[in-house]
Amino acid sequence: RTMNYGKEKIAVYRTYATPLEGVRTIPESSFDGRDNTLFGLDVRVQLEGEEFLPSFSEGDNSMVVATDTMKNFVHHQIGEYDGATVEGFLDFVGSQFLETYSQIDAVKMSANELPFDERPIPGDEGFEPSDLVFRVSDNESAFGEMYLDRGQDGLVVEDQTSGVTGLELVKVNGSSFTDYVQDEYTTLPEREDRTLYISLDVFWTYEDSEDALGMDPQRYVPAEQVRDIAQVVFHEVDSNSIQDLIYQIGLRVLRRFPQLETVSFEANNRTWLEVRDDIEGAEKARVLKEPPRPTGYQQFSMNRGDLDEEASQ
Amino acid sequence: RTMNYGKEKIAVYRTYATPLEGVRTIPESSFDGRDNTLFGLDVRVQLEGEEFLPSFSEGDNSMVVATDTMKNFVHHQIGEYDGATVEGFLDFVGSQFLETYSQIDAVKMSANELPFDERPIPGDEGFEPSDLVFRVSDNESAFGEMYLDRGQDGLVVEDQTSGVTGLELVKVNGSSFTDYVQDEYTTLPEREDRTLYISLDVFWTYEDSEDALGMDPQRYVPAEQVRDIAQVVFHEVDSNSIQDLIYQIGLRVLRRFPQLETVSFEANNRTWLEVRDDIEGAEKARVLKEPPRPTGYQQFSMNRGDLDEEASQ
Amino acid sequence: RTMNYGKEKIAVYRTYATPLEGVRTIPESSFDGRDNTLFGLDVRVQLEGEEFLPSFSEGDNSMVVATDTMKNFVHHQIGEYDGATVEGFLDFVGSQFLETYSQIDAVKMSANELPFDERPIPGDEGFEPSDLVFRVSDNESAFGEMYLDRGQDGLVVEDQTSGVTGLELVKVNGSSFTDYVQDEYTTLPEREDRTLYISLDVFWTYEDSEDALGMDPQRYVPAEQVRDIAQVVFHEVDSNSIQDLIYQIGLRVLRRFPQLETVSFEANNRTWLEVRDDIEGAEKARVLKEPPRPTGYQQFSMNRGDLDEEASQ
Amino acid sequence: RTMNYGKEKIAVYRTYATPLEGVRTIPESSFDGRDNTLFGLDVRVQLEGEEFLPSFSEGDNSMVVATDTMKNFVHHQIGEYDGATVEGFLDFVGSQFLETYSQIDAVKMSANELPFDERPIPGDEGFEPSDLVFRVSDNESAFGEMYLDRGQDGLVVEDQTSGVTGLELVKVNGSSFTDYVQDEYTTLPEREDRTLYISLDVFWTYEDSEDALGMDPQRYVPAEQVRDIAQVVFHEVDSNSIQDLIYQIGLRVLRRFPQLETVSFEANNRTWLEVRDDIEGAEKARVLKEPPRPTGYQQFSMNRGDLDEEASQ
Repeated sequence: RTMNYGKEKIAVYRTYATPLEGVRTIPESSFDGRDNTLFGLDVRVQLEGEEFLPSFSEGDNSMVVATDTMKNFVHHQIGEYDGATVEGFLDFVGSQFLETYSQIDAVKMSANELPFDERPIPGDEGFEPSDLVFRVSDNESAFGEMYLDRGQDGLVVEDQTSGVTGLELVKVNGSSFTDYVQDEYTTLPEREDRTLYISLDVFWTYEDSEDALGMDPQRYVPAEQVRDIAQVVFHEVDSNSIQDLIYQIGLRVLRRFPQLETVSFEANNRTWLEVRDDIEGAEKARVLKEPPRPTGYQQFSMNRGDLDEEASQ
Repeated sequence: RTMNYGKEKIAVYRTYATPLEGVRTIPESSFDGRDNTLFGLDVRVQLEGEEFLPSFSEGDNSMVVATDTMKNFVHHQIGEYDGATVEGFLDFVGSQFLETYSQIDAVKMSANELPFDERPIPGDEGFEPSDLVFRVSDNESAFGEMYLDRGQDGLVVEDQTSGVTGLELVKVNGSSFTDYVQDEYTTLPEREDRTLYISLDVFWTYEDSEDALGMDPQRYVPAEQVRDIAQVVFHEVDSNSIQDLIYQIGLRVLRRFPQLETVSFEANNRTWLEVRDDIEGAEKARVLKEPPRPTGYQQFSMNRGDLDEEASQ
Repeated sequence: RTMNYGKEKIAVYRTYATPLEGVRTIPESSFDGRDNTLFGLDVRVQLEGEEFLPSFSEGDNSMVVATDTMKNFVHHQIGEYDGATVEGFLDFVGSQFLETYSQIDAVKMSANELPFDERPIPGDEGFEPSDLVFRVSDNESAFGEMYLDRGQDGLVVEDQTSGVTGLELVKVNGSSFTDYVQDEYTTLPEREDRTLYISLDVFWTYEDSEDALGMDPQRYVPAEQVRDIAQVVFHEVDSNSIQDLIYQIGLRVLRRFPQLETVSFEANNRTWLEVRDDIEGAEKARVLKEPPRPTGYQQFSMNRGDLDEEASQ
Repeated sequence: RTMNYGKEKIAVYRTYATPLEGVRTIPESSFDGRDNTLFGLDVRVQLEGEEFLPSFSEGDNSMVVATDTMKNFVHHQIGEYDGATVEGFLDFVGSQFLETYSQIDAVKMSANELPFDERPIPGDEGFEPSDLVFRVSDNESAFGEMYLDRGQDGLVVEDQTSGVTGLELVKVNGSSFTDYVQDEYTTLPEREDRTLYISLDVFWTYEDSEDALGMDPQRYVPAEQVRDIAQVVFHEVDSNSIQDLIYQIGLRVLRRFPQLETVSFEANNRTWLEVRDDIEGAEKARVLKEPPRPTGYQQFSMNRGDLDEEASQ
């Protein structure tokens, strides 16, 4: 039986949280940590427990933790949290729920980061990031999900996923889409060199979910670095399709981060339609328009087996 | 391994589709059929097949049906479909995909109805519904999902779900929420008689998924009738919580439709916050405001066992 | 100089407000009043006053009414309002602002109705509307705007507009679009009989703005009746374009309501694109798809002069 | 009479457009130009002309340029445009409309830029911006509007506005809001040092609208530089209110750009509500939550007179 309840869209902000420092850097990314002066999360709490059945079947609320109370609980706990990562906070507050309310059998905590960009301010030696003013970013953001329940000797992380979602990238040249099935229903023209626009969510799981909490920054995989790998591979690879591209990104992520077990993708194809390629004196220039609303998508997961397979070829 | 791809948000409209007639009526609802002069669907196609792996791992598109082609395919098939229901069309077009492309192992078809309301036009004997002009409705709508794959002797419906989504109802009096857990994190005031505002998605599955296709209208469960049951039960029942309310709705749906196996709910609590209850000369009147964005939700499924359990008490 | 500030998106709900009764009926509409058991408004307050300049130029807040206070003020006043219309409430609360805060020179109040639909419940003699349960409607809604300032002898309504917004209608047959300019940039095919989908906002002003307040229901123009006129004219008229259609609707509104001075329109063309017209055994049937995002629109105002002009031809 | 029609939401993209170079730099900004490898605009066309009246009043389409044709026209002209700015393109395509269709009396062209961010790619000497891969930015973007009609000796720019819209900034410390009107409707607590979150649209007009076209880059005011001024002033100024802050930003913009006549603002207050200020060992740290939906706003315009006034004090 599906039986759970909770609170979603709990946007909560913590100023001057513990900075993320000492992160291992990779060739594809200049990211080496975050100040966390502004640490924002959009949190979802999901509680499961057999003792909640009477609230459905008998209108008995005696075991019910009001969802408004859950919101207050999350607000309180982000003040107590002294770590620096989305996943670390979800583990922390999920454990607090289980320790505070015995009627909860298991809790699924998930959150999207509410990211902020530093802004350049004229300083003595050129422009430096302001420590006061930040831009609210509507671009890609980190994601975390943690499923905790009660094991023999204490709480157990049954399931853990990290991610970066909402990455939207355009490559002006160097992507093709040809040699696909042609039949009476096919109207899409083959393209040797199209301007490819993708939106991409990338998720990953760790061999050891402890690494996800960021307590050892050297073993933590920051969303910003996975983002940068996706951008760099997109820059380097002449892809035959979005399927081809995400496979190459997956291999690079698995290669860079040996501590990861799987990487998976949800991609959308938002590629514009070409309108003009006859612009005088600008041979490479194109005029393009938005595609209609129907959207192509791909869902694909990979593990280290794919890396071995690649190495063996 | 997760490996699928497809096309979503394919809005497609068919005028003068086959009307839905001969539907069994129930006490809670005046709904007995639809003209289908305007039959609109927002369709999602998801293809699965081992032969698609090379498109990811080797950039080989030879087995790839372009997602643009899938869109054209759906557009074409709704012209060929001569049934009258969301589920019927999904079964029809899903089967056509499997019969047309051998590299597809399984297909998941889903769709939200794009509903239209009839509009009253002055006629000889009072107002009658126009057969030409319809209002585009942004309110609740039917939902269908169908997972088809290849069995020994032909195609098999592995999984089938019907639903009505986006129902938003307010009950001005007669809902309470009291006797829940009180602790240091609780700030929500108990309420003997609150104005309860819920948004509700209801899903159901059939004992025999053939019934879902609507070929025998007497065994078909229209979304409009489930909607009307939810409204009537909400009107009749003094609920102690949303959990309590959806349980009662579930029992009524299972009782009215013996052909159903399960019914499940995704509910959101959007209840307004009371601002004034001191309005001169209008004792029952209240002023209320929107709640903040964090939203309570419940996910719950029931089957005929719950009905038996209820009968036994 | 543009100088104003205020609060928008103040959603406020009043239960058991004064019903709208005694409204004059018209041939095109069965609407004759509303219970107002649930009276919802999304209100916008805009304050203007020279005494607010120092808050900009000198950081002096002494004259500033906090926008949070404005919200509380609106919440309070809807409990005091004993009328039955959007416009009436805006006039009431706007006047209260001017009478409470002398530093305000003028106030622009506007609001969109948050509409609710009655739901049929089985009663002794067939189905009757529930007096407890209502559906939150996402369809068209009433609109009001009122600009009040200080005249010689008391407050003056300088400007007043009523409206119905978000009306979305589809006519399956009987609309054409031909004989327009043809040139090298024209790709749209001429259509003798297209399925026309429009979204329409209609606004009107009164000769005497007092009539807008609804104190004399016989002279009040309900949004529901203007909506019904639009539907009926759309049903009756074989239009050559959206321009043609809105002109006919405007004439009918001005004819039905002699108390109105002007009627104006903001229309959007959302007409679907035809995909199939070759459906076996269903000569009238069509398959259609959504148009791309670029949207055609028309903005047009009419007054009684147009009615006279029409009569003279 | 209001009488116009047109096409909005025309998203159009031009690759390898003419770069914006030779821009005058200012102390607050490192912005000195753009490659325009990806030049995206969301364009709105509004046509006015007495000759369009028969299309409304007589259903006569003979003078009507189909809005679909307008879309094709915009698509074509962005291929012909060899300038580098939003305003320059609007002037170019607006003039083309007037020169191509004599029945048009005046045209209002407006557009929001569809911005892209450069992405860092490992190069020989550290990270360099990719010339192939760009991030679609959902953050602030440039705006332009141009009203052209027919003067004695040729086309005239009657009205011209530039802008940057959708800027969302948070300042963690150094903003207060105190000493405002206190009365029975006031519940907002005074704050000496709040975390201030504003969303800001800034618009400006030139003394000579020719400067807006960017043909002389030294006299062109780039949206990026106005954005950077807003961020720097927000960093520097301890504001008493949003009114105070936007006044200071306005003065700085007018001071930096003598070629501007006016600057105006539409600001929204999205400041979070404080939940905790008692975090152990982190005296400055706060926990904050989203405000409810009702939103405070300010609309304010300034001109060089304000600058003189400021100088005289």
